[in-house]
Amino acid sequence: MVLLELSVVPLGAGESVSQHVAECVALIEQSGLEYELNAMGTIVEGELDQVLAIIDRCMRHLAKSHDRVTCSAKLDYRKGRSGRIRAKVDSVREKLA
Amino acid sequence: MVLLELSVVPLGAGESVSQHVAECVALIEQSGLEYELNAMGTIVEGELDQVLAIIDRCMRHLAKSHDRVTCSAKLDYRKGRSGRIRAKVDSVREKLA
Amino acid sequence: MVLLELSVVPLGAGESVSQHVAECVALIEQSGLEYELNAMGTIVEGELDQVLAIIDRCMRHLAKSHDRVTCSAKLDYRKGRSGRIRAKVDSVREKLA
Amino acid sequence: MVLLELSVVPLGAGESVSQHVAECVALIEQSGLEYELNAMGTIVEGELDQVLAIIDRCMRHLAKSHDRVTCSAKLDYRKGRSGRIRAKVDSVREKLA
Repeated sequence: MVLLELSVVPLGAGESVSQHVAECVALIEQSGLEYELNAMGTIVEGELDQVLAIIDRCMRHLAKSHDRVTCSAKLDYRKGRSGRIRAKVDSVREKLA
Repeated sequence: MVLLELSVVPLGAGESVSQHVAECVALIEQSGLEYELNAMGTIVEGELDQVLAIIDRCMRHLAKSHDRVTCSAKLDYRKGRSGRIRAKVDSVREKLA
Repeated sequence: MVLLELSVVPLGAGESVSQHVAECVALIEQSGLEYELNAMGTIVEGELDQVLAIIDRCMRHLAKSHDRVTCSAKLDYRKGRSGRIRAKVDSVREKLA
Repeated sequence: MVLLELSVVPLGAGESVSQHVAECVALIEQSGLEYELNAMGTIVEGELDQVLAIIDRCMRHLAKSHDRVTCSAKLDYRKGRSGRIRAKVDSVREKLA
């Protein structure tokens, strides 16, 4: 499984982007994949083709109403692991305790 | 105020990096700045010089025991705003409701 | 068309990653898409599905021999534009002259 | 020495950002550090405090005329190495030949 953190932002659409982010989160919600929203992006867990499809859907959605769309994405694949949206944080917290 | 999301990873230190992340989170904890840990990085809020100092401290710390250290950082400055680790997420959630 | 800058790095594979980068650049070369290698990543221009397929191919290739593979990717879509690997740089340089 | 790739973009400043990028490149030029401009960012080589000062200067410059400024930055420190804007590319090209 792969963790994807993405943030998709249209340029030329003003200073506030929360409406656009909300539209992308709604698309992620529809995918049924586990996700977590944070202040700098949205983290999604799925198979590689599933998370790349999320990037595809979010960019195509915003490109319908904006002429320029940027995306920053970080992917983290680890063999045989899942449930990492929670497990990676727990693993760090245990070492801080 | 500025939001920083950073992830600092040594190369050549094996597949698991949670110990190194924990050491960086401890440094962030010492700074007294508000922060939130997630599966793909740590989000910190502070003045620009404060958040750049976090990058500096974390990279120098890991460089003491690793010959190669990489960092990915995203910064988001917005005039007159603070408390955005929570507010940015709330602003999106309101639009999803 | 979309510009993609990607950098794909296995964790647990030692300090030097140039061999892995070279294998990914060879895959990009095979795609026939226009690309430019730089010190921090490789920039590729193509349609959205073409550049996402590059991320897919590079991550699957490195995942054959590494249990953990990370990728950082930035995408920049702009309606009606192409040849931007060169044009974006020229547009900045004109403003510096 | 550290390689930094940065891209600093104001939000709410329209679709084209090349003018803002040019202003940041002029600041980098003034620093005297070695740099290379590409279609997705600017790569600079310097000591850690020097490259962090570049991020500081570019963000403060754009924040004078824009209420929201975002920055994405990747840093790559490697002990005992310099001249890596060229050397990292050559090292990959050798393995492709």
